[in-house]
Amino acid sequence: MMTRLTQLQDQYIQLAYGNGGRFMRELIDNLFAYHLHNPLLDTHADAAVIPSNNNQEIMVTTDGFTVKPLEFPGGNIGSLAVHGTVNDLCVSGALPKYLTLNAFIEEGLEIAQLDRIILSLATAARDSNVVVVAGDTKVLARGEGGGLYLATTGIGERKRKLGMEQIAPNDVVLISGSIGDHGTAVMLAREQFGMRGDLHSDSASVLPLAQALWQIPGLKFMRDPTRGGLASVLHEICQVTGLSVRLFEPQIPIRDSVRSVCEMLGYDPYYLACEGRIVAVVAAETADLALATLQAFPSVPPAAKIGLLLEGEPHLILETELGGERFLEQLEDEPLPRIC
Amino acid sequence: MMTRLTQLQDQYIQLAYGNGGRFMRELIDNLFAYHLHNPLLDTHADAAVIPSNNNQEIMVTTDGFTVKPLEFPGGNIGSLAVHGTVNDLCVSGALPKYLTLNAFIEEGLEIAQLDRIILSLATAARDSNVVVVAGDTKVLARGEGGGLYLATTGIGERKRKLGMEQIAPNDVVLISGSIGDHGTAVMLAREQFGMRGDLHSDSASVLPLAQALWQIPGLKFMRDPTRGGLASVLHEICQVTGLSVRLFEPQIPIRDSVRSVCEMLGYDPYYLACEGRIVAVVAAETADLALATLQAFPSVPPAAKIGLLLEGEPHLILETELGGERFLEQLEDEPLPRIC
Repeated sequence: MMTRLTQLQDQYIQLAYGNGGRFMRELIDNLFAYHLHNPLLDTHADAAVIPSNNNQEIMVTTDGFTVKPLEFPGGNIGSLAVHGTVNDLCVSGALPKYLTLNAFIEEGLEIAQLDRIILSLATAARDSNVVVVAGDTKVLARGEGGGLYLATTGIGERKRKLGMEQIAPNDVVLISGSIGDHGTAVMLAREQFGMRGDLHSDSASVLPLAQALWQIPGLKFMRDPTRGGLASVLHEICQVTGLSVRLFEPQIPIRDSVRSVCEMLGYDPYYLACEGRIVAVVAAETADLALATLQAFPSVPPAAKIGLLLEGEPHLILETELGGERFLEQLEDEPLPRIC
Repeated sequence: MMTRLTQLQDQYIQLAYGNGGRFMRELIDNLFAYHLHNPLLDTHADAAVIPSNNNQEIMVTTDGFTVKPLEFPGGNIGSLAVHGTVNDLCVSGALPKYLTLNAFIEEGLEIAQLDRIILSLATAARDSNVVVVAGDTKVLARGEGGGLYLATTGIGERKRKLGMEQIAPNDVVLISGSIGDHGTAVMLAREQFGMRGDLHSDSASVLPLAQALWQIPGLKFMRDPTRGGLASVLHEICQVTGLSVRLFEPQIPIRDSVRSVCEMLGYDPYYLACEGRIVAVVAAETADLALATLQAFPSVPPAAKIGLLLEGEPHLILETELGGERFLEQLEDEPLPRIC
């Protein structure tokens, strides 16, 4: 499986690539298995055996990916499908080890594009030290898909117990870097907006950051603020804990370019997806240590302490630069589907 | 999570049900978690912890589901998404334990239909003693999906080592029941064919059958003949083992109604999907025991010995009723997309 025996003869995906016969076998062997080969992946088996590691608790997560366009500055749906699931494990306190992959491919997708995407996926997996152990492909008739949808399920080993139930008043909220980069980069990559910018998605594995944070006493909870952004993560914390979250606007890292795009298009950066950031809730005593740990990983603008947990009504309140207060409400409409 | 707090207020899925905010939370809590609730599923966590069982090897599989129509006689995409993945584990020799679920929902899908489907999924999971431990939903804009696509990843405990590498000349091929039922039932459920029949999909968990077969010495390999049907499973065996497979046409169980539909529409039942059958390869000495084991589970027509592994070119040969021979070629075109 290390060498590509033949190039696929077509330029575009045909329905026959999904039929269980010769073309499907060629697609799997010459594209998916070619990029994703590893000792555990056997394309002739219905299930993969995972080496057992007895003293480890296992954690599982799953995520679907529908981003449009399929390729955008800073990544594509393939790298995103690894980062999204790897990051869900990392923020849950688990070391990512294995992935499974589902691909829903629309008839007519250019095979060269699919090849680039699966190569990115393989590279991102290798960089995060995870292997794809099982997969499935389906081909959808033209008009019944969005080019390509992916789903990845991740399996990891638990290294740290974290959870919203540990959150208490006076805990500190930290963010590992700027917010809104992914959302605005994908927005601008859509031709419909007729805008161009130098924005890049922050799509990345947070594994190194998470591994460093796992060592911090007083770390209570982490989440990667993807769909619905920072505000939606903090809203969920309010609802589950019954506490209030107070955010300090001047401390929230947002790139100027992201702020400009949001102002022009009428988006609120607090609700835009990030794909390589961590929101962490840490006890007040170790918040400075956690911040220093995060800032050891260079980021422009850098990681910051951005908020506090407080007794009170479960509201998310933004304290503005001028000392005013703004309630950040729960997201109701959907301004931007297929962002991740 | 045991009681449905509120009914969703809309009749159809809107884009806002995918935004990470209030509507998405309501969809997840009042529909998905309502049907799928179990102690391991926490819709406020990014990953689930799986209880560890130290002396067990773990197996993993994944499958995507795109069947059209979403509901058909004998099942729907929800029950199918459980049976397909549970069966992949069973035929691999693993006891299914946990599932993850991805849903790609098209804007405009009727919520009552989604509710029926997820209820079926939950019922099928309960019947197979598996729990859904993690999930993800995405909502696609109208025209960018096919109503509903699902992906399930299954995790199980290995109970029996099976594999194509164990297959040898003189081994016997068995099938646990009739072929082509799912393919023809789904075909007839599509209005485009303008036909009606009393055909039902065979969609079912093969767990009881598989558990019985795991006890048989000489059991070497099992597969559920889904996409591409019986012929595609046997072709793969030919290619991987380098052996020839000889099928005996009169012994292959096919319902008369399935045969009639295939003749009318020009389909070959050997290539049509089953969703509740096992193809098993067994050593000659224990083939009768395996057959008796399968026949202890009532099926009309019953399980049968249908073929032999032989030295020779890796071809799949059908010996016809009249003593002639027909080569069953590898599937090349795709007559029937979105069958599973």
